[in-house]
This record gives sequence, C-alpha cells and structure tokens, in this order.
Amino acid sequence: MKVCVAIDSYKGSATSEELNGAVCQALKKLGISSCNVPIADGGEGTLAILSKAFTGQKREVDTIDLLGRPIKGHYWLTEIDQVKTAIIESAQILGLTRITPNEKTIQAAHSYGLGLVILAAIKEATQVFVSLGGSGVNDGGLGLLAALCGQDIPPKNPLLLGKKYLAELVFPNLDGKKLIGLTDVMNPYTGVNGFSYGFGAQKGGTEKILAQFDAAAEAVRKKFQSQIDLNKFSGSGAAGGIGGGILLAGGQLQPGFATIAQLLDLDHKLASCDFVITGEGRFDEQTAQGKVPLGVARLARKHQLPVVAFCGARPENITGIEYHFDGVFSIQTRPITLKDAMVKKVTLENIALLTENVVKVYLSGQK
Amino acid sequence: MKVCVAIDSYKGSATSEELNGAVCQALKKLGISSCNVPIADGGEGTLAILSKAFTGQKREVDTIDLLGRPIKGHYWLTEIDQVKTAIIESAQILGLTRITPNEKTIQAAHSYGLGLVILAAIKEATQVFVSLGGSGVNDGGLGLLAALCGQDIPPKNPLLLGKKYLAELVFPNLDGKKLIGLTDVMNPYTGVNGFSYGFGAQKGGTEKILAQFDAAAEAVRKKFQSQIDLNKFSGSGAAGGIGGGILLAGGQLQPGFATIAQLLDLDHKLASCDFVITGEGRFDEQTAQGKVPLGVARLARKHQLPVVAFCGARPENITGIEYHFDGVFSIQTRPITLKDAMVKKVTLENIALLTENVVKVYLSGQK
Repeated sequence: MKVCVAIDSYKGSATSEELNGAVCQALKKLGISSCNVPIADGGEGTLAILSKAFTGQKREVDTIDLLGRPIKGHYWLTEIDQVKTAIIESAQILGLTRITPNEKTIQAAHSYGLGLVILAAIKEATQVFVSLGGSGVNDGGLGLLAALCGQDIPPKNPLLLGKKYLAELVFPNLDGKKLIGLTDVMNPYTGVNGFSYGFGAQKGGTEKILAQFDAAAEAVRKKFQSQIDLNKFSGSGAAGGIGGGILLAGGQLQPGFATIAQLLDLDHKLASCDFVITGEGRFDEQTAQGKVPLGVARLARKHQLPVVAFCGARPENITGIEYHFDGVFSIQTRPITLKDAMVKKVTLENIALLTENVVKVYLSGQK
Repeated sequence: MKVCVAIDSYKGSATSEELNGAVCQALKKLGISSCNVPIADGGEGTLAILSKAFTGQKREVDTIDLLGRPIKGHYWLTEIDQVKTAIIESAQILGLTRITPNEKTIQAAHSYGLGLVILAAIKEATQVFVSLGGSGVNDGGLGLLAALCGQDIPPKNPLLLGKKYLAELVFPNLDGKKLIGLTDVMNPYTGVNGFSYGFGAQKGGTEKILAQFDAAAEAVRKKFQSQIDLNKFSGSGAAGGIGGGILLAGGQLQPGFATIAQLLDLDHKLASCDFVITGEGRFDEQTAQGKVPLGVARLARKHQLPVVAFCGARPENITGIEYHFDGVFSIQTRPITLKDAMVKKVTLENIALLTENVVKVYLSGQK
C-alpha cells in the first residue's frame, strides 16, 4: 500500500511540508509507504512549494511593501521544461499579515511593490508565475499596472485617485514575456462577488468604503471594456483585483491548483498510489472554488482512488463538495480553543494521530 | 453490511439511546442496516438501559438522598431468566449531580438511602442488581450497611463516627437473596487507589480530609479482615466504597459491562454484524478499567470484527488500549468550548457526521 499525501498549509499553524511530514511519519510507523507532495493552490506557501520542487536561485529586489515601506522582495529563478522561469509570491510583498488591517490601511495599500519585482523578474526570465493569494491590498491591481508602465508610486490606493489618474494608465509592454497569475478563487473584478465586496471586509473595509471601491473598480472595468472585459475572466477579482491588473498588463490568469499540480506532476504520482490524503486548515464555501482539497480529490477520483481530507475545522454541511471525498475529518481530539488548536505542535500531533486511525479503518475494510 | 452500535452515554450531554439513535440514523442514510444496542457499564444510565431491555414495573420507595433529604427512590422489577429481579441505580439516590460537592458535603453524605431501597427491593425480588457508578458519597458503604442492619440514619458520614459506631456494625441477613453490585472501576477499598484517594477529590475532599477517610476505611477493612478482606475484591472501592459495603452485606460484585453485555446478549448480537461502533464521552485512563468501549472492543475482536470508538475527547496517547480499536475518533469538527461541545444537538449532529465519514472510509477499503 502506498499513500499519496498532498495537504495544503494550515494558515497560521503549519506549512504544507510540515503537515505532509507528520502524516508520512505516521504512515511509516504503520509500515506504509508514502508519496509526499507538498502542495499549494496559488495562495500563501506557493513559492515555498515550488522553490523546493525546482532547483534554482533566490533573487532579491529592492521594492516597497503594500504601505510603501522599503523591503526586500524575492523571486525564485529556475527552469521549467527548459523555459527560464521566475516565481513570485504576492503575499511576500503585499501580505495581509504585514499589516493590521483597518479603514486606513485599505485606503492606503497598493500593489506597486509587486510590480517592481515583476519588472525585475521579467528582465531575467521568459515566463513569470505570480501567486496571488494572501494579499492585503484592494487596489484593483492599478498599483502593479503603474509600476509596469513606469509611472510614479501612487500616494495612496490608486482606486481613490480619480479619473485623471485612471486616464494616464496604459497597457504596458511585456516584451513578449509571459506573465501568469495563479489564482485560488474565481471571483470577477466587480459586483457582489467582486474583489471589494468579496474580500474587502477582511482587509479593513467598511460597507461604505467598499461600495466606493466597487464603483471605482467598475469605472476601471468600463475604461478597458472594449479591449478586455475583466468580469469575463474568472479570478480577475483575486487578491484585491491584482488578477485584473495582471490581465490589463497583458498577462493571463490560471487556476493555481491545476497549474501547480501539473508542475509537480501530481497526476502521474497518483497513478502509483492506493489511497490519498489531502486537506486544508478550514473547510468552507471557498473550498469549492478551486482550493487544494477539491483539486486533489478530483484527480484522485480520476484514478478511482479513495481520498480523505483532514482539516482544522469543518462545517456540518459542505454542500456539493462532500461527495468528492470518502471522508472529511477534523483533526481536533477534544474541545479546544482556536488559539490552542493552532499551536503547530498540537496540529502536527493531531494530524498524525488522525492519520493512524483513518488508515487503520481503511485497512480493516480490506480484510 | 450490518453495523452493531453500542455507545455509552456521554455524561451531561446525551444518553446511550440518543447517541445510538443518531448513529443508526446516519447509517440508514447510507443504506446500511444496524443493530442498535443501548448500553452501560454499571455507571449512570444503567437503569435506563436495562428497564428498556426488560419489561417490568417501576417501583417507588420513600427514602433519603445522600444528604438525608427525603426523596422517592426507584427500582425496576422484572424477570430475567425466570428469576424475579430488581434493578437499582445508586446515582438515582446518591448521585453526585444532586449536590455541589465540597468539603462539607463529603463529610456529610452517606449511602443509607440506597440501603432503604435495597431493603424494599429485596422483599420482592430474588436477586437485586445495584449499579454503583456516579455516586457522590465517600462513606465506605457504611450507611448502606447500617440501613440493611436496621440501624438509625447516621447523623453524618459514618466513616467519621469513630470506633463505637463501627463496633455496632454487623453482617446483615439477606434471607438467601442475591445482592449484586455492578462496578465500572476496579479500585480496592483503601490505599492510593482506594475510594478516598481515587475518587474523593471530585467529591469535594481535600488531601487532608481524604487521608482521614482512608485511615477510617482502613480501620473498617481491618475489623472485617478475618472474615473478608475487602482489598482482595476488585471494585470494593467503587462508588465511595459502596462496593465494599455490598460485600460486607453478604452481596457480591460483578464487572458492570460484562454483566450488562451478557444480560443484553451482546455477544450473540455481534455474531451477525460486520462492523462495530462504540464510544464514551471521555477516553482516559479509566477507559482501561472496564468501561463500555474496551468491553465492546474485546467482544468485537472475539468475532474478528473491525471496531471503532467515537468520543467527545481523547488524549493523544491511550496507552495499552488503542490497539483494541481500528480507530478512536473525537466527534469534534472544529475548535469549540467544552460547554458548546456538550450541547446535545451538537453532540448528536457531530456523531452522525463522523459515522458517515468513518463508514465511507471503511467501505472504500472494501472496493
């Protein structure tokens, strides 16, 4: 028996690598071999996964974070299928965890700093992957666009700079290089599922502010509509609209999980396994959008493999997703506070314990 | 496929019948038949289980509770294998939940009221079963003995009444009737695992008081040692020493689970099943002592059936027990407070959800 282990990071608690490691260790104790595939879906942790999977060099770029403070930005330079490739993680530069989100930050934060790193990467590489998840900005990707056009750093969130600023934005020249945004959500640019209404609240936006942002984003969409209608692209509303910014910059969007799974050859790896363990920190309505567990489950089903998901928390009802799995289990072993549950040691002990128990049940079915 | 369901009550949250019902319902949704065996081990809930399994009449007896307050005591009068049988639950009369345990209650509480119900039952029945678990007394069973001997109600915990009181205690005459105490623990009468040190703290005893009680219990043991050495009987330290009191009264002790399982014909029922689900509220070191889950698991193993246990809380390590099970799962689906977790609706929803997931994993192993 061989088990494929491909669990997404539990944000704020343990990385994909750590979780996979704990599960593989538990399997080893049972005398079961494993295929360890640390994985991500375009959210935080993507760079860590891909830089382990593809040897290369870390490049440093002087840039600014989402509030304009000078920081070192990174990209990973490697070769994939003989194509010189750079990999950038938005959250490293624009991460929500860099700030305490509130009304002021959402009105100040922009994506210009990410644009500077893309500019540097695009000089060296033929294709640039940008993982979009985990950002703290809500600027519709206009900051990124400004950087790629060689404009100045915006004094605040460029969505608030009005029509004059908008008029100056043009399509940048990517010099024939490929810019690919990896998204883990399918939201459009504007409207009730757009970036402002969909994710703005967790970035500090009040209802009033978000309405203002959505209207400004709608103006952006209309300006470019004749060349490209952002709302027709799934994921243009990812990362506060950076998805849309990448499209306007002449780049493309790809579903993060599918792309990363292909880069890691997950399909082929599954073919030699008998059982699959996946998971993520929190199962919720976003899980259906293209997050790791559902992606892994679909691939497992293609190979007719049993697949279970381990998570920190799950709702009673996971409408329309549950049937993809042979089981969705919480790792919690007792009533516990969120804070205590998120301690890395607790998470890793619990997931190891759950592995042991679930695999034993599976094996008992084979007797 | 047929699943045998035999889960102990989750104390303070849901009864065995409710838990079994939720699990059987979940199985039905999966199209799987079940054998529903509400069960107990001599702890609280035993009377509820047996009175459902054996038709009979509820008898009421005027008695007193553990603090001497007048209450209605009950016994169930039925016939088992053509023997007129009474069933009494200690906790109904002496339950810890009747009081707020503290230093004063442990020095006041006694088991005299249970003795009165036994006296009434023994007049009608040929054998009397007494489930011992869940009591709030720590009187070494001397109150019970006093009642059976026809002595007066003790003014306080008789272990504190000194040598003179002790001298008056004699072996009562049971008229050839069988008195059987059902225990869910194996503790001896005195010493570090005796009733005082083992369970006195949860009944309000301080270390100093418990030392005093253990010394008094040791004096009782010595007085009767030539006829019967209480510490040689497993379970004499059950229920604050009522186990010992039943022995001194000429009765006998039986392991609760084994006796109840036999009364319910569990062994025979398992023979027609393919999978077993058991459980209890909290897995801990007491689980190893003769509680429901381990008892069910051993019987399941005899029939070479896979067996899983569902609980509210489990430690990371269940030394020496875990190998009896194919899986020990907590029903918790997320970080949650103890109070919220113990809400009956939550418990029943979670156990149904877990059933579905665990059984699906088992079935995936059969493909």
